[in-house]
Amino acid sequence: MRLDVVTIFPEYLEPLNVSLVGKARARGRLDVHVHDLRAWTHDRHHTVDDTPYGGGPGMVMMTGPWGEALDTVLADGYEAGARTPALVVPTPSGRPFTQELAVEFSERPWLIFTPARYEGIDRRVVDEYATRMPVYEVSIGDYVLAGGEAAVLVITEAVARLLPGVLGNAESHRDDSFAPGAMANLLEGPVYTKPPLWRGRGVPEVLLSGHHGRIARWRRDEALKRTTAHRPDLIERCPPEAFDKKDRETLSLLGWSPDPAGEPYGRFWCRPKAVEQ
Amino acid sequence: MRLDVVTIFPEYLEPLNVSLVGKARARGRLDVHVHDLRAWTHDRHHTVDDTPYGGGPGMVMMTGPWGEALDTVLADGYEAGARTPALVVPTPSGRPFTQELAVEFSERPWLIFTPARYEGIDRRVVDEYATRMPVYEVSIGDYVLAGGEAAVLVITEAVARLLPGVLGNAESHRDDSFAPGAMANLLEGPVYTKPPLWRGRGVPEVLLSGHHGRIARWRRDEALKRTTAHRPDLIERCPPEAFDKKDRETLSLLGWSPDPAGEPYGRFWCRPKAVEQ
Repeated sequence: MRLDVVTIFPEYLEPLNVSLVGKARARGRLDVHVHDLRAWTHDRHHTVDDTPYGGGPGMVMMTGPWGEALDTVLADGYEAGARTPALVVPTPSGRPFTQELAVEFSERPWLIFTPARYEGIDRRVVDEYATRMPVYEVSIGDYVLAGGEAAVLVITEAVARLLPGVLGNAESHRDDSFAPGAMANLLEGPVYTKPPLWRGRGVPEVLLSGHHGRIARWRRDEALKRTTAHRPDLIERCPPEAFDKKDRETLSLLGWSPDPAGEPYGRFWCRPKAVEQ
Repeated sequence: MRLDVVTIFPEYLEPLNVSLVGKARARGRLDVHVHDLRAWTHDRHHTVDDTPYGGGPGMVMMTGPWGEALDTVLADGYEAGARTPALVVPTPSGRPFTQELAVEFSERPWLIFTPARYEGIDRRVVDEYATRMPVYEVSIGDYVLAGGEAAVLVITEAVARLLPGVLGNAESHRDDSFAPGAMANLLEGPVYTKPPLWRGRGVPEVLLSGHHGRIARWRRDEALKRTTAHRPDLIERCPPEAFDKKDRETLSLLGWSPDPAGEPYGRFWCRPKAVEQ
């Protein structure tokens, strides 16, 4: 997979050299190119922004440098044999970046990232390149960053670990939160390793029992506890068939019950107000 | 504000030296300390992980190094005059990191981050330090990363830009998506700057009109269009009083109407299925 990143802070992308993404590059799974947007400016001050039409605070990144940068990146990539690029535009106005989207990205051969600063990029840049390739405007969460570079690191890492041959056994993604399978839509519960006693704190006895069935059940119950506590929205959205008889008993003990009236609104399960205190 | 980060990939935190966070440090608003967890190991291989109790794939980070690391970081911080620390634990099992939480973090004097790798940290570490300080287990979004370091960069940047004196005029947060005010819960629409014509593409005429009222209305309508398209969940959750008469006209044109039956389920507005195609 080829990755291009155009940014005014190339040094922010240094983490792409280390850890998992660095390993993916070393193994030839990822071909990463970071470009300084200011290389495509022509004035003495390397200006990339100007005041917004219509007034208001902040600055807007200009079409000119972005257009020249993307044309060059595209020409270079095609020249090197890359095909079917997609543009990934990190922006708080985008649709949510999710694990499903990470999987979709991991199947594409070429991603071009355009992390912006200030109030964002002149809209005409997206409009222009959307005529030539898919454009994904994505937001990594409901918080405001100073620029898109941190989002590029997040997206790149989520994507890189899904590429074949990148993850070792120590970093398996079989039991991931948000991965398909038994734990789908549930957060993982607590984990423990040696020693059995640390500062007077022990390990749940069941984990030392060697009884696989009881351990699996305990983990599932802990995942249900954790999810109801931290992400009730995930429980609410689980269709009834997601839970077996034992799950339902645990949910009931946690104060949750089916909510047939809420189904048209995506709420399959609810916790009565009295229990929420 | 004092920030400590304990990690096995200190070089991943290099971006804390550049851009906005770097500026906040240069201005004395942030005092950042990055520590290598392996400094608190005592074997030749600097081991920080072991197999999970109860079996299963992946490795769990051990209590020992984390306990020694946090004790040292706490002692050093107190010695330097820092007070009332809080532990921030990035984990996919955490509660969502939001702009509200960024504001809460920005008001604390001392944050200690514990980005983990593999399957996470032995639970007893959080249990232990939760007896001494607030612990925030947070997730930056519904996707899986290789480790918590990228999340630390995201959280730090979201927090740093809220510190007094860090943002310049060019990076105002008055009109931020997710900020309080007129745009609360709406995504920002498109922005434009000079030149008026680029590759045959013009600028919406209203933005050149100089008519502040019409410009504000246009921006609001664009924000409504963008939000209904990318984040219908945000529109659904908006209480009726969030929208004035003009907003309601725009929403109606976009196919949205009030849904009194959905209110108990947090759905104040809905778009009939037929329109969703």
